[in-house]
Amino acid sequence: MERTIYDLDQKDMPTHWYNIQADLPEPLPPVLHPGTGKPVTPDDLAPLLPMELIMQEVSTERWIEIPEEVQAVYRTWRPTRLHRARRLEKALDTPAKIFFKYEGTNQAGSHKPNTAIANCYYNMKEGIKRITTETGAGQWGSALSLAGAFFGIEIKVYMVRISYDQKPYRRIAMEVWGGKCVPSPSPDTKAGRDMLEKWPDCPGSLGLAISEAVEDCVGRDDTHYALGSVLNHVLLHQTIQGEECRKQMEMADAYPDIIVGNVGGGSNYGGQFLPWIRDKISGAKPDMRVICVEPESCPTMTRGLYAYDFGDNVGLTPLIKMHTLGHGFIPPPIHAGGLRYHGMAPIICHLYELGLVEAVAVHQTAVFDAGVKFARTEGIISGPEPCHNLKVAFDEALKCKESGEAKTILIAHSGHGHFDLGAYERYLSGKLEDYAFPEEEVKKAQAELPKVPS
Amino acid sequence: MERTIYDLDQKDMPTHWYNIQADLPEPLPPVLHPGTGKPVTPDDLAPLLPMELIMQEVSTERWIEIPEEVQAVYRTWRPTRLHRARRLEKALDTPAKIFFKYEGTNQAGSHKPNTAIANCYYNMKEGIKRITTETGAGQWGSALSLAGAFFGIEIKVYMVRISYDQKPYRRIAMEVWGGKCVPSPSPDTKAGRDMLEKWPDCPGSLGLAISEAVEDCVGRDDTHYALGSVLNHVLLHQTIQGEECRKQMEMADAYPDIIVGNVGGGSNYGGQFLPWIRDKISGAKPDMRVICVEPESCPTMTRGLYAYDFGDNVGLTPLIKMHTLGHGFIPPPIHAGGLRYHGMAPIICHLYELGLVEAVAVHQTAVFDAGVKFARTEGIISGPEPCHNLKVAFDEALKCKESGEAKTILIAHSGHGHFDLGAYERYLSGKLEDYAFPEEEVKKAQAELPKVPS
Repeated sequence: MERTIYDLDQKDMPTHWYNIQADLPEPLPPVLHPGTGKPVTPDDLAPLLPMELIMQEVSTERWIEIPEEVQAVYRTWRPTRLHRARRLEKALDTPAKIFFKYEGTNQAGSHKPNTAIANCYYNMKEGIKRITTETGAGQWGSALSLAGAFFGIEIKVYMVRISYDQKPYRRIAMEVWGGKCVPSPSPDTKAGRDMLEKWPDCPGSLGLAISEAVEDCVGRDDTHYALGSVLNHVLLHQTIQGEECRKQMEMADAYPDIIVGNVGGGSNYGGQFLPWIRDKISGAKPDMRVICVEPESCPTMTRGLYAYDFGDNVGLTPLIKMHTLGHGFIPPPIHAGGLRYHGMAPIICHLYELGLVEAVAVHQTAVFDAGVKFARTEGIISGPEPCHNLKVAFDEALKCKESGEAKTILIAHSGHGHFDLGAYERYLSGKLEDYAFPEEEVKKAQAELPKVPS
Repeated sequence: MERTIYDLDQKDMPTHWYNIQADLPEPLPPVLHPGTGKPVTPDDLAPLLPMELIMQEVSTERWIEIPEEVQAVYRTWRPTRLHRARRLEKALDTPAKIFFKYEGTNQAGSHKPNTAIANCYYNMKEGIKRITTETGAGQWGSALSLAGAFFGIEIKVYMVRISYDQKPYRRIAMEVWGGKCVPSPSPDTKAGRDMLEKWPDCPGSLGLAISEAVEDCVGRDDTHYALGSVLNHVLLHQTIQGEECRKQMEMADAYPDIIVGNVGGGSNYGGQFLPWIRDKISGAKPDMRVICVEPESCPTMTRGLYAYDFGDNVGLTPLIKMHTLGHGFIPPPIHAGGLRYHGMAPIICHLYELGLVEAVAVHQTAVFDAGVKFARTEGIISGPEPCHNLKVAFDEALKCKESGEAKTILIAHSGHGHFDLGAYERYLSGKLEDYAFPEEEVKKAQAELPKVPS
């Protein structure tokens, strides 16, 4: 029997998240207050986040225990499966061994519940009754709505307008779990109303939706805000993926030579590769390659500046040191809504600057081409986001075919594309757009990076 | 740790399907030729189906080996998981133990690939290049398209026009896997063209779609036809579910007092309960209850006649002894498209007549109410079909609460509702219709049952 699935027993599930901050060769640059230029304090963030998450944000403890209540909810679908893509290997006629860790089988269909559940748990413990958030493609909004149902918290989601229109089923899913979802820009906030006045047909952006969610949170004692990517504590919660995967790769008697993942804010891929990259930092696996894949139309790592910038479009957040296309940049309307973000998780940017990870940008039609190939070999219809890394994984597997090397490739597969079939239809009918790198818009946005007060 | 998932290792996957025909107290009534009234012969069916499936249809061998090529494809997602619904138990405050075997995590999202893959395999072995079929809601068409991609067979799906228009995502999924899907009536067949000439805007019907698929098959040597439910060989392939589940329940140190499943054509539920009911037939578990759940608007078992009838609306198929509302009956447009069928698998009808299974009919709003409760406790958004059995499982669990009995309830959960969110939206906005039992229409249809020639 050729095994294709490596199931980890629930009793062997990791009980701790892995915190890369304990093992970084240099510490992360601090997050700064935009008014003073001084590092933000826990008190600055307290109106937005529960104290436990604020402390996780700056913790340098290596292992942080997953509360039993969070583990219990994880167990409604975790551990997720590690697959060996044997049919794909044969179709590509490659000596490479291709594995993928698939986060698409949970109730919300992506990796997002890993952190949404932790988020709602800590908020619930602090007595919070309501959480606001933004969502791009809708995965985060639906994951948070799901988590809200699990912990009895009301969820209000500002969904990027173009995705709201393209993906009505995502919105309804949120409502099934009891969440409330409005298109952003919305008339519910000043940030939204201002944008609607300037640009009534604005397709929205993650940055603007963040502005709306933050505005809706500030000044309400019963309400906090939740972010589904970028921040250190979000990547921390996602490490459940990589920690599980290490045990599963051991079951498969394998170790990745190459890990491939797509990056929007960076949390899914961070959750997979951070538990591995400690072996590279320690020197145990110096040759392991960690490839971050991003869209050509929003190439934050390959074309961004490494600088302090706001996390949102309007400028409400603290200043974060990251690769950025400029907080004012609104990316073209590619279907991978989860990758339309001007910035990137500071942890990943830091590792990129240290030369520990690499990055590559790919075009949308090549991405869907890979997605269709994957569907016709392994069956799974992937979200547009993970299709990005499928494209690069295939390229690496084909390089192995040429060189004859039997490398082990591990794909961080974030979820299914059941709500993205409109995009597949455009691809199959030859109508899918490719967007070039929007150089002028990015230059303009990067010219308006905030000055750090000194 | 409270375990909630019981994973069967791939090396312990069942290697044989279970054939209930070996253990029936009385044999099934034969399928009859409508012209002669004599049992149909393998030769009668050979233009439509591969000989292996025809032989499985009448086999009385207890165990039929699953070909390794089929097992290999099953292994892209199987074994499926058995879940213990601990959060639901707590929410219902019941002493009952609730388990569900979930078939929604495969690539097509339902139980249908279990038989679609076997079907394409046997057709491929017989040199068939192309398979035609009909689909209503689209689950069968997408499962067969997936299977066609796995075995290099061209799939042509005639999809009832109104569903084709209402559920574009199902159609696009078929196309992603390489299937060809046309709305029925189509210009591709004489049956379709005749209808389009008479009625250009005809919304189509399953009966007409069958006519088109059969016409497109007959007379082409490279083409066969495939049916996704009702027939004995389809239930046979689905027993992989129950055979896996027996091992998983053993891991959980549990045995079901009550098994609950919804029935449309009966293949999903048959696949789960047939491997269990042999213990009832043998006398080992005389008190085990097997409950078939059907919609109030299409209550085939509770209100049907047990008689010979056609399997399709038009009258093209052989005569099948089953519970029927009359082959001319068109059920109200409930959202559980998979349950809108006038007949029922002959095996299930036979067991019902023998008093080995029971049946109950439920209303649509109660069904979606259960679906939303399930989503807010266990997270999963279920298809409208499995929501039917959730409703009855909840009722049984609440009876346990009253009586204080800690019964073990096993739910046969056929799949997710990601493409049915429009129905959830109607429910949440209070716009979902309940349909009474359409007594007059059924009486009229039952008055037109075919006479068996003697």
